[in-house]
Amino acid sequence: MKQNKKECTSKLKVIPLGGLEQIGLNITAFEYEDSIIVVDCGLSFPEDDMLGVDLVIPDITYLKNNADKVKGFVITHGHEDHIGALPYVLKELNVPIYATKLTMGIIDNKLAEHNLIHNVRRKVVKFGQNINLGCFRIEFIKTNHSIVDAAALAIYSPAGIVVHTGDFKVDYTPVYGDAIDLQRFAELGKKGVLALMCDSTNAERPGFTPSERKLGAVFDSLFEEHKKTRIIIATFASNVDRVQQIINTAYKFGRKVVVEGRSMVNIIETASKLNRLSIPENTLIDIEKLKNYPKDKTVIITTGSQGESMAALSRMASGMHKKISIGHGDTVIFSSNPIPGNEKAVTKVINELFKKGADVIFQDTHVSGHACQEEIKLIYTLTKPKYAIPVHGEYKHLKAQAKIAMDLGMEKDNIFILHSGEVLAMDTESAGLSGKVPVGTVLVDGLGVGDVGNVVLRDRQHLAEDGILIVVLSLEGTTGELLAGPDIVSRGFVYVKESDELMEEARRVIEKAVYSCLDKNITDWGKIKGTIKDTLSEFVWKKTKRRPMILPIIMEI
Amino acid sequence: MKQNKKECTSKLKVIPLGGLEQIGLNITAFEYEDSIIVVDCGLSFPEDDMLGVDLVIPDITYLKNNADKVKGFVITHGHEDHIGALPYVLKELNVPIYATKLTMGIIDNKLAEHNLIHNVRRKVVKFGQNINLGCFRIEFIKTNHSIVDAAALAIYSPAGIVVHTGDFKVDYTPVYGDAIDLQRFAELGKKGVLALMCDSTNAERPGFTPSERKLGAVFDSLFEEHKKTRIIIATFASNVDRVQQIINTAYKFGRKVVVEGRSMVNIIETASKLNRLSIPENTLIDIEKLKNYPKDKTVIITTGSQGESMAALSRMASGMHKKISIGHGDTVIFSSNPIPGNEKAVTKVINELFKKGADVIFQDTHVSGHACQEEIKLIYTLTKPKYAIPVHGEYKHLKAQAKIAMDLGMEKDNIFILHSGEVLAMDTESAGLSGKVPVGTVLVDGLGVGDVGNVVLRDRQHLAEDGILIVVLSLEGTTGELLAGPDIVSRGFVYVKESDELMEEARRVIEKAVYSCLDKNITDWGKIKGTIKDTLSEFVWKKTKRRPMILPIIMEI
Repeated sequence: MKQNKKECTSKLKVIPLGGLEQIGLNITAFEYEDSIIVVDCGLSFPEDDMLGVDLVIPDITYLKNNADKVKGFVITHGHEDHIGALPYVLKELNVPIYATKLTMGIIDNKLAEHNLIHNVRRKVVKFGQNINLGCFRIEFIKTNHSIVDAAALAIYSPAGIVVHTGDFKVDYTPVYGDAIDLQRFAELGKKGVLALMCDSTNAERPGFTPSERKLGAVFDSLFEEHKKTRIIIATFASNVDRVQQIINTAYKFGRKVVVEGRSMVNIIETASKLNRLSIPENTLIDIEKLKNYPKDKTVIITTGSQGESMAALSRMASGMHKKISIGHGDTVIFSSNPIPGNEKAVTKVINELFKKGADVIFQDTHVSGHACQEEIKLIYTLTKPKYAIPVHGEYKHLKAQAKIAMDLGMEKDNIFILHSGEVLAMDTESAGLSGKVPVGTVLVDGLGVGDVGNVVLRDRQHLAEDGILIVVLSLEGTTGELLAGPDIVSRGFVYVKESDELMEEARRVIEKAVYSCLDKNITDWGKIKGTIKDTLSEFVWKKTKRRPMILPIIMEI
Repeated sequence: MKQNKKECTSKLKVIPLGGLEQIGLNITAFEYEDSIIVVDCGLSFPEDDMLGVDLVIPDITYLKNNADKVKGFVITHGHEDHIGALPYVLKELNVPIYATKLTMGIIDNKLAEHNLIHNVRRKVVKFGQNINLGCFRIEFIKTNHSIVDAAALAIYSPAGIVVHTGDFKVDYTPVYGDAIDLQRFAELGKKGVLALMCDSTNAERPGFTPSERKLGAVFDSLFEEHKKTRIIIATFASNVDRVQQIINTAYKFGRKVVVEGRSMVNIIETASKLNRLSIPENTLIDIEKLKNYPKDKTVIITTGSQGESMAALSRMASGMHKKISIGHGDTVIFSSNPIPGNEKAVTKVINELFKKGADVIFQDTHVSGHACQEEIKLIYTLTKPKYAIPVHGEYKHLKAQAKIAMDLGMEKDNIFILHSGEVLAMDTESAGLSGKVPVGTVLVDGLGVGDVGNVVLRDRQHLAEDGILIVVLSLEGTTGELLAGPDIVSRGFVYVKESDELMEEARRVIEKAVYSCLDKNITDWGKIKGTIKDTLSEFVWKKTKRRPMILPIIMEI
């Protein structure tokens, strides 16, 4: 790793390239003179109005425009909103990736799926280890989160040290590995921290987030209580510690464990291979073997805790799962909280499960992976930053963290809530906004990356709202004589046979309008189309108070 | 009111015509021999997959088929999910309505809007009053809820008494009127209650719901704390008591009150007229006068607490409101909780408001209008019903109430969770399901009631997902010669000029397929269309992994 030896005296620039405007697109550039490093590279899932869109990834125009400066991606942990866009972005900007062991394991799976695994340089970093990237040195610091191997970053630049917590909580008794390295945060604080970028997700919640380990006892008592039923537990695939605890309890109660759902199977495989998960021998069984064991001697760990319609649990609930059917004698435990926006979908699955006769448990069976107010205060107090840049969360969460920072005595002017693309330039003397860089979102739909934009989305919304009426007619090329039509074809408008009164009346109205155009010798097809559109639109609105898309098509013979 | 004097010895039938399968469609028929009464007649709002639908109302086929038996609608309270479908249903089945004063005031407004006010018999009923309807006698009993004049019903039939709580809570210190008439529930219990139909909405929540009056003190302290800002409070339009308390506090602090949002203005007008709301003189001012007062001397009470995109608060937050713009120096209070499904919309508005510089308060500023577990236990203990029929809520809520009833010592076999259309027949000897009646939902879209069904919705979903490709071509009628086309027009698929490579390639693929049909002398247009569909679908899937709707149109010249 070459280190840039020339003296650096400029300001450090922090540039979020996503995040606030589209939650989940966590990607932040740190720029110092001719060096740029990028922390995380997340994707997000489409908003309700992004019809038909599969994924949303960040627009990296700024990085591409400065490709020669970009030294690499430094990744805090293996959640989709921190790594998901990597395969797409690397196709346009191939730079090395730095991450801890499990994080890299998950990234590797993604790169393999996209046939990128052999083209991208990747380096696994240990906690406490430093890497040099241009002007920057980056140290990985142990934290706790709802995924193993989560890291905070100390980013050393000539302008000072930035501490970026990543997503984190303080867990004094984690299931795997050590507690968060609070001593290192303290040492950095003693040394002098220029800016703290701290997770805001739970900044509205008072107190401390409980330890993940708490759930071990919860599972023990639930298994004790439901000794006579099969137990099905839905949780986040990536929460390896949670899976570990379920497996521990299952083993204790002499139950065999089946893992169901593609992402769950993948992550358990990866985590086992990397020694982040230890499964007692003869505990895991194949789903095909389930029938060989009495129901009360089995546990199924499954995806679908967010009510995702295609996930394993939803398919079980709706009776569409090929191998597992749920009913009386089943206890289903949701070891999860609904992510905002998923509440209704989750409730729907819970209701379906109850209707099938299962017992369903969904309260007090989850702990958060994010720091609450007292933990945030702890990190501020240990690091004593000059500037605060709340990160990870919606605007209201960032505001809540800003309030915490002020309660701790920080000046309002030293706290920065950054919008995507805003450039914060800082050194020990001062900090302030200095311009904007181009940012935005790129929509992924099927194989198309970026070919669905606002026009297409607007059309889809229009189509979704009231459907479409297509008017076709054929005109003689030279004389302009009406040879066939107008015919009306509708989809998603109203269920009528074409012969029905409304459509027949509409046809007559359009015919009249077309003839009146032709009688006036109007040969501009654009004008004829416009007339058809206006006439039909008015007619339909009057009759139905609906506004379907109207699409006139004229064929020239 | 005629009373049916002949001896009645049959069973009483309870038939929910909506509710569980579509939350909000509260409508229950009580049938005894030749008499039917209907409790409530609610509407619900479309689920996410009901694209373009405005409202959902119940299918009343069963009532229409038994129109001569139906004696009237008995309404518990004035919320949309209990009265909203009345104007639609009354057009098909004109029977009298019985309701308390404010409830009827709100119904009257609806009927007036639909030009029905002069055609429907309506009778305002007082608490404690009885009405005779065929075999039935119905007594209205005072309860508390998040709307004034909410009633429980004692439904006397020859087979026994059914107590229906409506939506309720126990409020010992209500803002307007008396506490719930617990003595009457007790008297009925002493007399003997055949069945209790009790509100389940909060059956998962332990403890007691706090009194509405609690919020008076909350508003007082918030006004004290934000003396120097304008205060904007969003709440449910129909929560007259809430509005009363806001007005009381505003008056105490010498602030003028502006009411904004159509439904809020309407309900305040109606409630004032009916003496359910008392506004001190010179407190209410017109929105046009707002500018004549200093900001810190005004309060705006507004709709939009659920993040509804067209409501007043959302328009203020997005800068689209014509008369009120929000920024620094504004405190916005959400006196509401998001209704399940609205969480993201509400959060979006909160974030917008924060971004505009307003202070936003949305925690501990609301109390529920529904009974928690201890209140439900109280009602069971006072009425001591033989059978329990949990109502109002999703399946999981009804299950939670069933569990409460069992904890109180009721037999599992005496508790009935009824699906829409199920007929529960009962008398003091026994109770059990006896058949099903036709039920369902009717979708309202614009002026159309029931003309949007599954086919149309499926088409809209398909269009929304990947858009539409329309293939048009003209064939000579007798020879089958291709005269024009094939042309492809797309909407909502992908943004390309028609000339672009993908579309041009698609056109060539179709052309080839059409010629191959014509060469084989295939003249069945259905077959040609099928070939076009299959060919294009395969081509597009291979190229884009998308499945747009494909619509071939052939014109005959």
